[in-house]
Amino acid sequence: MDSIKKLKSITDKIDCPEEKYYKLAKKKLDNLTKPIGSLGRLEELAVQIVGITANSRPSLDKKYIFTMAADHGVVDEGISAYPREVTLQMVYNFLNGGAGINVLSRHAGAKVIVVDMGVAAELKENPLLLSKKIGYGTKNMAKGPAMTRQEAAQSIIAGINIVEQYVKKGADIIGTGDMGIGNTTSSSAIVSVAAGVDVCMVTGYGTGLDDKGLKNKIEVIRKAIKINEPDPDDGLDMLSKIGGFEIGGIAGLIIGAAFMKIPVVIDGFISGAGALIAQKICPISKEYMIASHQSVEKGHKIMLKVLGLKPLFNLDMRLGEGTGAALGISLAEASIKILNEMATFAEAGVSEKSS
Amino acid sequence: MDSIKKLKSITDKIDCPEEKYYKLAKKKLDNLTKPIGSLGRLEELAVQIVGITANSRPSLDKKYIFTMAADHGVVDEGISAYPREVTLQMVYNFLNGGAGINVLSRHAGAKVIVVDMGVAAELKENPLLLSKKIGYGTKNMAKGPAMTRQEAAQSIIAGINIVEQYVKKGADIIGTGDMGIGNTTSSSAIVSVAAGVDVCMVTGYGTGLDDKGLKNKIEVIRKAIKINEPDPDDGLDMLSKIGGFEIGGIAGLIIGAAFMKIPVVIDGFISGAGALIAQKICPISKEYMIASHQSVEKGHKIMLKVLGLKPLFNLDMRLGEGTGAALGISLAEASIKILNEMATFAEAGVSEKSS
Repeated sequence: MDSIKKLKSITDKIDCPEEKYYKLAKKKLDNLTKPIGSLGRLEELAVQIVGITANSRPSLDKKYIFTMAADHGVVDEGISAYPREVTLQMVYNFLNGGAGINVLSRHAGAKVIVVDMGVAAELKENPLLLSKKIGYGTKNMAKGPAMTRQEAAQSIIAGINIVEQYVKKGADIIGTGDMGIGNTTSSSAIVSVAAGVDVCMVTGYGTGLDDKGLKNKIEVIRKAIKINEPDPDDGLDMLSKIGGFEIGGIAGLIIGAAFMKIPVVIDGFISGAGALIAQKICPISKEYMIASHQSVEKGHKIMLKVLGLKPLFNLDMRLGEGTGAALGISLAEASIKILNEMATFAEAGVSEKSS
Repeated sequence: MDSIKKLKSITDKIDCPEEKYYKLAKKKLDNLTKPIGSLGRLEELAVQIVGITANSRPSLDKKYIFTMAADHGVVDEGISAYPREVTLQMVYNFLNGGAGINVLSRHAGAKVIVVDMGVAAELKENPLLLSKKIGYGTKNMAKGPAMTRQEAAQSIIAGINIVEQYVKKGADIIGTGDMGIGNTTSSSAIVSVAAGVDVCMVTGYGTGLDDKGLKNKIEVIRKAIKINEPDPDDGLDMLSKIGGFEIGGIAGLIIGAAFMKIPVVIDGFISGAGALIAQKICPISKEYMIASHQSVEKGHKIMLKVLGLKPLFNLDMRLGEGTGAALGISLAEASIKILNEMATFAEAGVSEKSS
């Protein structure tokens, strides 16, 4: 089947969580030995997850972070502080367990799966590596569309298929992550178009540009938007013209989570760009999203505002890879343990509020 | 020896962490495979912990939360939404593993030790319970001092002794927690005096007062301050006149952590009152403190400002017990795993920044 039609046939089947489960979770939390609502956002998280999973006693034992990797043709314009080959080098670092995402995922008890969405090199086979390669890096968006509309749909379907595959393996919750030299450039372009704000409002230093580099990056993004004229109301159009294969894959993970009714924890700026695409294509997917952190990267605040998501924490992080999602998954699991493991007033023989 | 002199002999021996360890940690972090500083506050935490422990490769394997429990005479004034006996009931809930702090400590891999600092009842012996009882609840501070100056010093020394005892058992990091019906009243009084702001600026609903109850609580605190005239420059004076046995115990845990050179993660509003007392008595202790979260409780923002601490996260929590500290300990451990487990650029064969 044509990828665009296939994607539509999936999103047409996605529905909102049922209100009754939210109420059920709230009632359960209000009987636990604590002042009502005193665990704040942990309680909100638990309510959301009960709603998503339609299960009053969900388990978040099996946790996966998918780090979606791809290269970007726009790197030719000198928009990154790091050379292109770092994408590939970091993929091997992930597979060897030495990157930030490996450390934080181990800490959270989550498995890292690296997905080749479009790295500009052949990768050696590895049990921790999934190949969903759409191409050897995108084309240079400063000169034309980054990819075709079919490729954009394929990248999203790849993400959806991953979630289907891992839910069959027992995945209870997933987190999104990214690796791709040049991908803050693409993400800034997407949020600029989606939010309708000028590029300079949403473009930051990425992995570490200097001021001159930042000026060039802004000009390159403006050029890419001018040449391509992406339609802010058409997620596939934005993704194909100014996106990236890993950003499409992330959008797919999110739509896939909504399709399979599991929570998805969104990492920072790049994952947020994927979330913008997902939400444009399938607005209901928002109900399944958990925003982990507020990134330092300029533009993330506006991005979260457009998404309508409030991040769980702000630790001044800007590494990507899924590092924020790993910490967010740990909080999600904590919230569910609260729901499942705390004693009620009656069970513990604790007096309730007197007034 | 007289408790006040004994306390002074301990605080006189406390020294700042050595600057060279901070530099060492920073250098190590900057060689890891990530843009410099991109893990934000996790990196700052790792630097602080290396400094505190004087160890370039610290381990935070053994983690303890001490939940300090005591009763408050001021409950006679009707300042709490819950009856006094809830302190005792919640102690048994802690010992049975059913409270919020039990769940979140298990999640963080920390052990909960409950300390009877002054519950107004005899407690049954339990391997998870330490008895450091200073008295059967404080006296009503609205009518005179909550405790004597000697008792205040004793409560702090009790906390210090606990840290000494548990560091001998291998404790790498500790978190503070509290249980005591009426203790937001005492904590609001302390921050009002320490910050020099009116009571109404720092007094909130506690476990769930209504507006009438809040008005009464504010009046009771004003009365307690007026009658006792606590000296804002004298930590023992504040603690004895308007404090609580568990607040003294918490101050002791913090001073003890500084004495034994281990990091101490501070919970929310009540623990913050203990931190104010600790800092007043031993200003250097601040270097050993990690503020976990920004609580919903009114007055906590001003408290953190006076302490000069920036909390790690804000999840709209207000439960106490050490629940924020448990999540904070998990972040501290994550930061040390980053330091110890991430690959360097050289090890991973990743190219460094080009510009």
